[in-house]
Amino acid sequence: MLFLICFFNRTVSAQQRHEKIIIESNYLLYLPEDYQQDSLKKFPLVLFLHGSGERGNDLDKVKAQGLPRLVEAGKKFPFILVSPQSVADWETRDLMLLLQGLEKKYRIDDERLYLTGLSMGGYGSWDMATKYPGLFAAVIPVCGGGDPSTVWNMRHTPTWVFHGAKDDAVPLKASQEMVDALRIENPSVKFTVFPEAGHDSWTAAYDTDSLYTWMLSQKVFKYKAITLDQQVLENYQGHYVNSIGNDTIRVTAAPGALIGTTRGRMVEIKPYDKNKFFISEDEPVDIVFSGKGKKQQFVINDRRREVYQLIKKE
Amino acid sequence: MLFLICFFNRTVSAQQRHEKIIIESNYLLYLPEDYQQDSLKKFPLVLFLHGSGERGNDLDKVKAQGLPRLVEAGKKFPFILVSPQSVADWETRDLMLLLQGLEKKYRIDDERLYLTGLSMGGYGSWDMATKYPGLFAAVIPVCGGGDPSTVWNMRHTPTWVFHGAKDDAVPLKASQEMVDALRIENPSVKFTVFPEAGHDSWTAAYDTDSLYTWMLSQKVFKYKAITLDQQVLENYQGHYVNSIGNDTIRVTAAPGALIGTTRGRMVEIKPYDKNKFFISEDEPVDIVFSGKGKKQQFVINDRRREVYQLIKKE
Repeated sequence: MLFLICFFNRTVSAQQRHEKIIIESNYLLYLPEDYQQDSLKKFPLVLFLHGSGERGNDLDKVKAQGLPRLVEAGKKFPFILVSPQSVADWETRDLMLLLQGLEKKYRIDDERLYLTGLSMGGYGSWDMATKYPGLFAAVIPVCGGGDPSTVWNMRHTPTWVFHGAKDDAVPLKASQEMVDALRIENPSVKFTVFPEAGHDSWTAAYDTDSLYTWMLSQKVFKYKAITLDQQVLENYQGHYVNSIGNDTIRVTAAPGALIGTTRGRMVEIKPYDKNKFFISEDEPVDIVFSGKGKKQQFVINDRRREVYQLIKKE
Repeated sequence: MLFLICFFNRTVSAQQRHEKIIIESNYLLYLPEDYQQDSLKKFPLVLFLHGSGERGNDLDKVKAQGLPRLVEAGKKFPFILVSPQSVADWETRDLMLLLQGLEKKYRIDDERLYLTGLSMGGYGSWDMATKYPGLFAAVIPVCGGGDPSTVWNMRHTPTWVFHGAKDDAVPLKASQEMVDALRIENPSVKFTVFPEAGHDSWTAAYDTDSLYTWMLSQKVFKYKAITLDQQVLENYQGHYVNSIGNDTIRVTAAPGALIGTTRGRMVEIKPYDKNKFFISEDEPVDIVFSGKGKKQQFVINDRRREVYQLIKKE
């Protein structure tokens, strides 16, 4: 994103100066036709990341491809479209700051933030979605790629990937690797390969009408507790130890939830599936039980992905 | 940090507006006496985070405590001191942006960035140091606390913690828990408890002359490969599988390093200790081997901390 940094020295004292840094971010903005009609309504927002050809200091260049091009051609969308311009690679931190700023200015439904981008913007979409897993309701990376080892962060993020089979700028393999890795964590990932398309798969992708229907029907993932049979909860009771042996967690059943106790602290562990639990509605920490008898274990599926093995039944 | 966000609409077209967001960050700046004398020299920088009492919109308040107070009283430091002001909690992203801006304006030795803060700023120091483990050469949290499960990110960060034993605002336990957790990963952590101090342990902490000598002798951690006996490398050869069984890594010995192969990709794994390896000089990814015979394994100590167990000797 374009961030011009200016500096101002406000006062000069003998010891310490008062200074400030000014940061500027430029973007194209499209508002849906009914935005002004209902001053209470909140709107979905799509963040669009252009490719390397549209970089620079001239926002008109951003109108050349993808969603901003469709809007210029007269397309009406039912969402706010924000298309920033970058001078170099996409920086997730800068994009986050832009979103925070926009949320102060516009009526945005924060359960319906969507992210898409093409080529360099496809890479930016994967990067942003893995860095901020709880932010976007759906992500659509077009002819991009990324680091497959990060995709488990997107296990709860509806994702639709597009690529051209004859792409000679970003090989199909770049998307395929991401999709293969993500499918293990998130079987619902969608992957559309245009067999005859080269690098420009975005024109066909953004002309796909069902893309918008699918996208707008997604809401940001939140854990929702379910009712589990008390017997199932009791099955998980016991003392568990992690693989390096420096932490023991005691798991006991409370009404409707498990209680985990470690180092004198207790935490409630709520079920959202038969064997899947969470700690907080808003944090992407899964606790997944598996195995039976002596092989019973759980994996804390947060950043650490640590395995805890049952050592003693409760 | 204080971030005033202003908006400007530059042009209004029928379809999409050109807009920009302006963000402003305020801070106190102190430059060492010899900063102007040598225009090529780079200087260490200390980022100081104030406590909750100094929040607001008036930078003069920041001068009331800690390092800015010492500077106002005439103390000469051999480093650049930056003391931003926050209106609410410290936000790591905002601090990162401030540092990026400062690096464009001042001659900063990026191997010698240091971080300290008191009370709310002590919490901010722990938070920042765990979020950006490769950034700071040393961290000094004073009467703060944080999330002990994140401290393994600081396993390579020299850390000196201060607290008052009679602190009734932030209990000693808040530092103690962090130190206990960090000591497992980083035995060199220093912890100074002032037995008679209440919440104000920072006056005594920042009056500790040896603190500055210790701090300024630290440089940011970079992996440095060592020469390991080829026989030791060959001991680690074999096929390893992760705990959920969806990844196998083949490890073979090359001259001076191991080669890991998984899913058709190869990566060089260089030793920095008898049983500790790294992939890249700049990224905090440890690969730690342990165990013998059938129990031989390694742990990838990055965000995932995954255990790989030997299944077949090479």
